[in-house]
Amino acid sequence: MRMVLEPSLDPMTYHYDHHIRVRFAETDAMGIVHHAAYLPYFEEARVAFLRAIDHPYPSVRAEGLEFTVLEAFARYVQPLRFDDVVRVHVGVGAVTRATFQLAYLLTVDGEVRATGVTVHGCVTTTGHAARLPAWLPEVAQLYGGGKE
Amino acid sequence: MRMVLEPSLDPMTYHYDHHIRVRFAETDAMGIVHHAAYLPYFEEARVAFLRAIDHPYPSVRAEGLEFTVLEAFARYVQPLRFDDVVRVHVGVGAVTRATFQLAYLLTVDGEVRATGVTVHGCVTTTGHAARLPAWLPEVAQLYGGGKE
Amino acid sequence: MRMVLEPSLDPMTYHYDHHIRVRFAETDAMGIVHHAAYLPYFEEARVAFLRAIDHPYPSVRAEGLEFTVLEAFARYVQPLRFDDVVRVHVGVGAVTRATFQLAYLLTVDGEVRATGVTVHGCVTTTGHAARLPAWLPEVAQLYGGGKE
Amino acid sequence: MRMVLEPSLDPMTYHYDHHIRVRFAETDAMGIVHHAAYLPYFEEARVAFLRAIDHPYPSVRAEGLEFTVLEAFARYVQPLRFDDVVRVHVGVGAVTRATFQLAYLLTVDGEVRATGVTVHGCVTTTGHAARLPAWLPEVAQLYGGGKE
Repeated sequence: MRMVLEPSLDPMTYHYDHHIRVRFAETDAMGIVHHAAYLPYFEEARVAFLRAIDHPYPSVRAEGLEFTVLEAFARYVQPLRFDDVVRVHVGVGAVTRATFQLAYLLTVDGEVRATGVTVHGCVTTTGHAARLPAWLPEVAQLYGGGKE
Repeated sequence: MRMVLEPSLDPMTYHYDHHIRVRFAETDAMGIVHHAAYLPYFEEARVAFLRAIDHPYPSVRAEGLEFTVLEAFARYVQPLRFDDVVRVHVGVGAVTRATFQLAYLLTVDGEVRATGVTVHGCVTTTGHAARLPAWLPEVAQLYGGGKE
Repeated sequence: MRMVLEPSLDPMTYHYDHHIRVRFAETDAMGIVHHAAYLPYFEEARVAFLRAIDHPYPSVRAEGLEFTVLEAFARYVQPLRFDDVVRVHVGVGAVTRATFQLAYLLTVDGEVRATGVTVHGCVTTTGHAARLPAWLPEVAQLYGGGKE
Repeated sequence: MRMVLEPSLDPMTYHYDHHIRVRFAETDAMGIVHHAAYLPYFEEARVAFLRAIDHPYPSVRAEGLEFTVLEAFARYVQPLRFDDVVRVHVGVGAVTRATFQLAYLLTVDGEVRATGVTVHGCVTTTGHAARLPAWLPEVAQLYGGGKE
């Protein structure tokens, strides 16, 4: 397990967040959001984050790079329900030459619902390992949210 | 709407069927399978059907062809529930030079749960319209299940 | 098939639309949005539509009603791609005592990408058929988008 | 993080496995299975596992219990592709009075593709914490697969 980032439970320690409204399709027969649906929430939030910091993912791909997912983790604290508006806080950390980690904190009306971490590698679109773009370590300085 | 096939409600009129067990992830907060989850069931069944008739979809793709989905329709008769073993009956019809249609009948323990139709076009992997493979009209002769 | 509504291809004939940005998770190995992912788009748009007309779906459920999906149809005109911002236009029509139909037109930058129709029944939360709420026929007068 | 189980990479250390064939709907625009699709694979495998050991999940629910997911983790070693037949090995460990953990090893033709861990709590169907069924610690004795 390469995962070392521990998401902060305090929304104030994050400098970016993205809102997602829960779809009915994402609920399950327990009446709550199915646990697998959180990973696309993390993904939507990190794509929005990259756009917000002027490195939109389509431009990353246009430069011949992909940020593959090496590991993903979610901790389910309180359930999410249909039509909840979820605030997904995103932080960056644990940057190495070839990998970086994102921390996620999901809240509804300020209450913690879940946390998550994803570990990403950088590969060329032909699948070879590549160095991270130079802007990534800088971004990690600016956007906290997790302890290593 | 190009769709002209009407799926028979009689399992006996189909000559192929494929079993799928409902995943918990496919249910929704109404306690039943979400209506969008039926389209992947149709898809899994048609991929299994192509394999069964010795034209597996990966070999179709290897020949430089894709069967794109032009239209999809589902009628929900009785709900499906978690852990149901669904029998997806597949029929073929309405073959033209560039399109064909598949009919689906979903049953559980012999009871009708849903029907569906998909209309497919044939394109090259670079996206240009292509003629259907020569075996498709023959297959439509052998595998009924729908009235046009 | 109860479906009788035919979605207009002219965005101007609709009086409501909702924006959805395509998630990477919704794409498939053909590089485009998987055809099954359109049904949750329709659903998100109709939930947003109900909210916009002051009849949010959670309040429908709170009144003991569910709008079940009886039939769903999608026609795929041009593909959707990752990060596309899709405008989902919604219209209402074909209202009977127990059912109604919604028409969908999906555009990106004004270009038609897909259309869809869903047919809905009204049931009590215990599963019995129920009359439509009195506001539904009125809404159908105001929100066009489809020809019957 | 409650997760302590580390999945073994050796298929021989597991005593149960379940086959899943990759659906086209589960792939993404990178041409491989989307990382979120692995969680439903884990779920399908654990439901099949419970059935195999004569404690099918519907009977767990019939006894008034739910095994909620408290944490989920996946590590992506090599990609899965459309039509791959994936062998999902399942092991049990880290049983406490109220929680247990499952380890997953995914292989294709004997090659490791991914590992995973899920941490489960036991609650009543009304949402209160409950003791694990008496058979769970015994099952953990019999089904290995992970180191704590």
